[in-house]
Amino acid sequence: MSTLEPFSFRIADRLRGVDSSPVRDLLEVVSKEGVISFAGGVPDPAYFEVDDVKAAYEWVFANHPARALQYASSEGELELREQAARRVSRHLPTTADQVQVTTGSQEGLFVVAQALVNPGDVILVERPTYLAAVQAFDLNGAHMVGVPTDEHGVVPEELERLIAEHSPTFVYLIPSFQNPSGICMPVERRRAVADVLLRTGAALVEDDPYGELCYTGEPMAPIASLPGMSAQTILLNSVSKIIAPGVRIGWMRSEGPIQFTLTVAKQAIGLQSPVPDQLAVARYLATADVEAHLERVRPVYAERARAMYAELEAVLPRDAHITRPYGGMFLWVRLGHGIDTARLLPFAVEEGVAFVPGASFYAHDPDESTMRLSFVTHAPDVIHEGVQRLGRALARYGEL
Amino acid sequence: MSTLEPFSFRIADRLRGVDSSPVRDLLEVVSKEGVISFAGGVPDPAYFEVDDVKAAYEWVFANHPARALQYASSEGELELREQAARRVSRHLPTTADQVQVTTGSQEGLFVVAQALVNPGDVILVERPTYLAAVQAFDLNGAHMVGVPTDEHGVVPEELERLIAEHSPTFVYLIPSFQNPSGICMPVERRRAVADVLLRTGAALVEDDPYGELCYTGEPMAPIASLPGMSAQTILLNSVSKIIAPGVRIGWMRSEGPIQFTLTVAKQAIGLQSPVPDQLAVARYLATADVEAHLERVRPVYAERARAMYAELEAVLPRDAHITRPYGGMFLWVRLGHGIDTARLLPFAVEEGVAFVPGASFYAHDPDESTMRLSFVTHAPDVIHEGVQRLGRALARYGEL
Repeated sequence: MSTLEPFSFRIADRLRGVDSSPVRDLLEVVSKEGVISFAGGVPDPAYFEVDDVKAAYEWVFANHPARALQYASSEGELELREQAARRVSRHLPTTADQVQVTTGSQEGLFVVAQALVNPGDVILVERPTYLAAVQAFDLNGAHMVGVPTDEHGVVPEELERLIAEHSPTFVYLIPSFQNPSGICMPVERRRAVADVLLRTGAALVEDDPYGELCYTGEPMAPIASLPGMSAQTILLNSVSKIIAPGVRIGWMRSEGPIQFTLTVAKQAIGLQSPVPDQLAVARYLATADVEAHLERVRPVYAERARAMYAELEAVLPRDAHITRPYGGMFLWVRLGHGIDTARLLPFAVEEGVAFVPGASFYAHDPDESTMRLSFVTHAPDVIHEGVQRLGRALARYGEL
Repeated sequence: MSTLEPFSFRIADRLRGVDSSPVRDLLEVVSKEGVISFAGGVPDPAYFEVDDVKAAYEWVFANHPARALQYASSEGELELREQAARRVSRHLPTTADQVQVTTGSQEGLFVVAQALVNPGDVILVERPTYLAAVQAFDLNGAHMVGVPTDEHGVVPEELERLIAEHSPTFVYLIPSFQNPSGICMPVERRRAVADVLLRTGAALVEDDPYGELCYTGEPMAPIASLPGMSAQTILLNSVSKIIAPGVRIGWMRSEGPIQFTLTVAKQAIGLQSPVPDQLAVARYLATADVEAHLERVRPVYAERARAMYAELEAVLPRDAHITRPYGGMFLWVRLGHGIDTARLLPFAVEEGVAFVPGASFYAHDPDESTMRLSFVTHAPDVIHEGVQRLGRALARYGEL
């Protein structure tokens, strides 16, 4: 080995080619430059229940200091699993021992992939789907196939056809206020999807971070709660959207022998989740008024969703397709006309606004004219200004 | 699919056969039954600096409440990376941007394996080595080969031979107070190992959780700090042994393009570590007297190490080999005489004492007469009682 060459590590194939992308680099500068960012799914910190969370941590260190600092089980702290079970049980009877705690939903997705995916396995995903899930599945060797969707989510006939064709390891769905599309599957569609899954015996990984951010009517029951589905589903939740994302507490609900496999995978990946956060979140869920918090946040985000929809309608080409979500955090735009939103982004950042180009949300055959915009971070006046800037960026792009 | 059969998930090959083992089951009951456990590497909670840690969390929620609850970068919070860099720099000049935060060392080991290991790759490990590292490497498809060790750690000639034979992806070493053997490589051995690594161009993953728990003399500089080694090494640390394990904060130090790959892997595996713990640990490291804490703990653990060694010497067969660590948490026993410590364990648990049978610490060809005992959890009088019980278990085993 020549001493003139710098040493370089051998990189695993799974991570080769995962370079810094132009999009990633652009979005990195966004937060530093006074750009109005619609890119991240970042909740407005003004609506965090800071006092309640602070009180929960204080309670933990006043009452269980040694326990908060000591090693603990890979499954998670009992109090947190009980609170998680209580919340899931509103729709689907669940015991604490059916709950595995994870350090946020992302770890949950990775644990599931480690536990279930063999290299080359097919996972069926929505088209478009959540890009960080795709990343976790991809690193575990999965091949993603996108299921066509309409305005109500995956099309059951297409799902059935693709299950028959690919015999997937599992189907990954975000039925409520999907990231990135904002779509919420109506109950009839959920039933039709469950019928397909039950008939074909295909496993479901159901990701439900946004279900409680429902701005009209009641939050919908997960597909896991439909008759016959609970044993066939791993259901993932997190407190990122009902308390705050920085604490990184999520959980997954499953039944039967798979629970042990998931725990072994969790143990190898991260031993256990931090105890202070687990106990604090358990305390918060046991004592704070989560419903009151949600009722405070929902109308704020609903107004922002309406505002962003209206602003975009005024600025985008007449035939652009804009989803009109009644929950969650995201709004999805299809511009059409051969516009490439990855090429639009530099103009947008120059004008002082950012979004995520849609291509990265597709497992294959991306529609490059799409983009994801989060409506939760900014107040309506900032949304107005940001969309104006987006309009100017589009005009400049159009002059090319 | 028959509705009479319960649904079962397809398990990935990497997790097939990872069943509940008899040892795992036995160790599970240990904590519940009044058994004196030497099994876990569990610090004595009486020596946690509860007030300082509590003050650090309070400071975080008083000064950065919104930030503590918000999404943050995958690399980790700047203040924590600065404090980590400051600590590593005592031996090896390090900047904050060379530090990747992990949710404890276990996540760090898994991130490294994701980033570097292709299925079938060889990793050279010490013989014996840390079993949770083997688990993380194994799930990523690695094949572990054990390097013979003597009382000073891996034998350089054997290391060189095995590097030539296997061209390993990396060599995994715990040079200071190794888990499970308690061995600390002297500086001459570190130099000899570094020479081999530099000559062969083999990458090093250096795990250093115990270096500061040094009961005689100064903590030793990591191999990463020897001339030429820093670019070739990923160095892992955690605060589990210098503050407390429950907060799950660790970091890894690397140089060059590998940093980006590690961050991408970390992002896919767990997005980011929880912010409250990151900021609290940063605050603690910036303001609390870590050295004073270590000076309080070291003599306590040193006394316990001496006590356990003396008690074991009085009780075990004369020709049993017992390591005499001057740091860390573990003491390693080789009983010989064809004794199988996995078969001894049930007798031990019946007598009211637990240890970890040594076989699980070997990548292959285990010495089944070995066991790992942690000396840090209990006071000398409890150690005395526990070792008496171990003696009774051995006597009963001998009567078989």
